[in-house]
Amino acid sequence: MKTRIGVAGYGNIGRGAEKALARCPDMELAAVFTRRDPRSLAINTPGVPVLPLDGAESAADGIDVMLLCGGSATDLPEQGPRFAAAFNTVDSFDTHARIPEYFAMVDRAAANHTAVIAAGWDPGLFSLVRALSGAILPDGADYTFWGPGVSQGHSEAIRHVKGVKYAVQYTLPVEKAVAEVKSGSRPALSAGQKHTRECFVTPMEGADLAGIEAEIRNMPNYFAGYDTSVRFISEEEFLKNHAAMPHGGSVIRSGNTGANRHTIEFSLKLDSNPEFTGAVLVAYARAAARMAREGSFGAKTALDVPVSYLSPKDGEALRRELV
Amino acid sequence: MKTRIGVAGYGNIGRGAEKALARCPDMELAAVFTRRDPRSLAINTPGVPVLPLDGAESAADGIDVMLLCGGSATDLPEQGPRFAAAFNTVDSFDTHARIPEYFAMVDRAAANHTAVIAAGWDPGLFSLVRALSGAILPDGADYTFWGPGVSQGHSEAIRHVKGVKYAVQYTLPVEKAVAEVKSGSRPALSAGQKHTRECFVTPMEGADLAGIEAEIRNMPNYFAGYDTSVRFISEEEFLKNHAAMPHGGSVIRSGNTGANRHTIEFSLKLDSNPEFTGAVLVAYARAAARMAREGSFGAKTALDVPVSYLSPKDGEALRRELV
Repeated sequence: MKTRIGVAGYGNIGRGAEKALARCPDMELAAVFTRRDPRSLAINTPGVPVLPLDGAESAADGIDVMLLCGGSATDLPEQGPRFAAAFNTVDSFDTHARIPEYFAMVDRAAANHTAVIAAGWDPGLFSLVRALSGAILPDGADYTFWGPGVSQGHSEAIRHVKGVKYAVQYTLPVEKAVAEVKSGSRPALSAGQKHTRECFVTPMEGADLAGIEAEIRNMPNYFAGYDTSVRFISEEEFLKNHAAMPHGGSVIRSGNTGANRHTIEFSLKLDSNPEFTGAVLVAYARAAARMAREGSFGAKTALDVPVSYLSPKDGEALRRELV
Repeated sequence: MKTRIGVAGYGNIGRGAEKALARCPDMELAAVFTRRDPRSLAINTPGVPVLPLDGAESAADGIDVMLLCGGSATDLPEQGPRFAAAFNTVDSFDTHARIPEYFAMVDRAAANHTAVIAAGWDPGLFSLVRALSGAILPDGADYTFWGPGVSQGHSEAIRHVKGVKYAVQYTLPVEKAVAEVKSGSRPALSAGQKHTRECFVTPMEGADLAGIEAEIRNMPNYFAGYDTSVRFISEEEFLKNHAAMPHGGSVIRSGNTGANRHTIEFSLKLDSNPEFTGAVLVAYARAAARMAREGSFGAKTALDVPVSYLSPKDGEALRRELV
């Protein structure tokens, strides 16, 4: 019997999860839940019902795991606890600073369900590697670099600047900083020393370009303190060259065992951030279903889930083929 | 109370584990067990007893986890099941083809203990990444490259050739193959297309150099089918430049979500293979002790162990600092 998956929220990540499910013969998309008018939403999988997000709980009998594909700013803080009370859930909550608080909220709600939070690639896979490499090389330091890739949050912030029609922001790791880290010298690096920010902006007609550029460069939390470039491009160029959502990054830990030095590196290069994130959610859904069957309830992060639970292969096949 | 660790076998890996333990305030080296005359063995940690490997079971009350630091060819097939009957154990059994059989043997013996097998870096960390990345990108292929680094098995094989005094063999990944894999083209590559083998040999006086070279190059299983180079060097150069045991490698999976392509890469660059392996064993010892306290008995591989169990930090600290 296939594991029946619900997708709550049909944005980029929800569609990515739908695509990933199509490649998993042991799982099936059981329903999509949306805040929009369900009749207005055409999804890619034929024959799957689209239902209203409000009252989704009434569909609980037909869903083994619900993937929460909303945003971390406002959707998940409300939906995470609400859905964990009725479903096993997986989400990619990604506001690092609020993870302890979010975990506690979801954990309280998930008394009879398994709720895997923050299970994207960062947090998620990168968290796994940070914890793994730190446990093996306690005398060491780890560094996370993001990019090259599109930051949705930064792109969104630029779109709110007056006179901006379209905007995209690429985060780029500083090559010199990466090389320094790989050398094992354990440099002290601020976020601004590790990354530069490249903005492509299509202005509205007659907009004050110098004003837009200054406002972006000085935006606190987002751009102040970073080496930021702003380029103005035509609408045509924007739509042609900047519609994709590539991303990636790396976690590097360098550490010592006495005089000997070691480097552990984990890197991702992703053509589509939301499709990859959707694929990670789906793998953790397989684990959530299994943990729920075993009665391992409450909130979990990727660190709490054995990697074997993510795989459709059983222990014997994993040992024979992959260990 | 500290987790009390026994080290069975005081070779390179045993000494590496001893060094790693010195950096773990939550664990302590309780005893070293050796096949040699214990009085003849001076270990690096003061005040720790050295005991005979025969009859080690009588020390079981004082040991929470025993690290099995012997070789995979003859030591572990005997010691793995024997010690798992009396201790919680961790080993780095690394004969890939025999892992299912070894797992079954140890699992039968470990009725009341936790026995983590094959917990080095390959098998071990690389196995984790192969399983993780395969679960996320089922439409893909993974590639494992080893080196640059010293292969103990191949070095040993050369040392058995007549006329060889000292020998070391470096395994090198073929850069062109790595680049092809990273491009996402999913090439079909034999082991010999992925790696070259570089041998440094100090011959005995008057040895037949051409004969040694031919015997090495044609050695089945080890060198036949590989691009192998053999260089003869002086004893002085050998001892000066080839005594270290660096190693490393990478696991790369490239896969697609429809038209979009993604690459996951995990790489290690290690100054000392046995010291890093010892550090991995020690991290898995922490996990083995915890799983044993929870009553999770039997044989395990790295895939069965949540990463949080490897860390001395509790769940709250991990979520705050690393997720």
